[in-house]
Amino acid sequence: MASFDIGKLDDVIHGRVRLGIMAYLADADVADFTELKTLLELTQGNLSVHLRKLEEAGYVVIEKSFLDRKPLTRARITEAGRAAFAAYLDAIGKLVGDRGGD
Amino acid sequence: MASFDIGKLDDVIHGRVRLGIMAYLADADVADFTELKTLLELTQGNLSVHLRKLEEAGYVVIEKSFLDRKPLTRARITEAGRAAFAAYLDAIGKLVGDRGGD
Repeated sequence: MASFDIGKLDDVIHGRVRLGIMAYLADADVADFTELKTLLELTQGNLSVHLRKLEEAGYVVIEKSFLDRKPLTRARITEAGRAAFAAYLDAIGKLVGDRGGD
Repeated sequence: MASFDIGKLDDVIHGRVRLGIMAYLADADVADFTELKTLLELTQGNLSVHLRKLEEAGYVVIEKSFLDRKPLTRARITEAGRAAFAAYLDAIGKLVGDRGGD
């Protein structure tokens, strides 16, 4: 029988924008702000808010550097972030997965 | 390449409680309030709020009847609800699915 344990869905990750960020970083490992803004069609402010929440949870680190004298800000997924995303995938898979009809 | 189109995630369904309700009704077709409250560990008020939102979207219908002279309230998934849930599964699958890798 399918599980309906919605308590197992990590709210930090389940939020739509943060889910997009985490799904992308799970693949890409690291992404700069411009890349994420474009990909997810977000404003700078909105992206910053969600990255901060992921950073506070320890799921991403924000790296600031310079490229050709221009500031470059990047987000990188952490080991804890990978583990949390894997747990999220497991939980959402149990909740909505395996519904091949009746 | 994976898709990161978070705009395709239906907010009415993505909310954690409503996702639990829809996932359950997609299997069960119909459920009474007590069943849903117990399953999803919700208060009556919280469940009502989320069912109303699903009802307003046309994804469930609320059926009121009597059983042994006691009022019985049940939620039933609609055809539109099934279609929306199928579209949601497709969108979330594209977003988080197929990440077996490195």
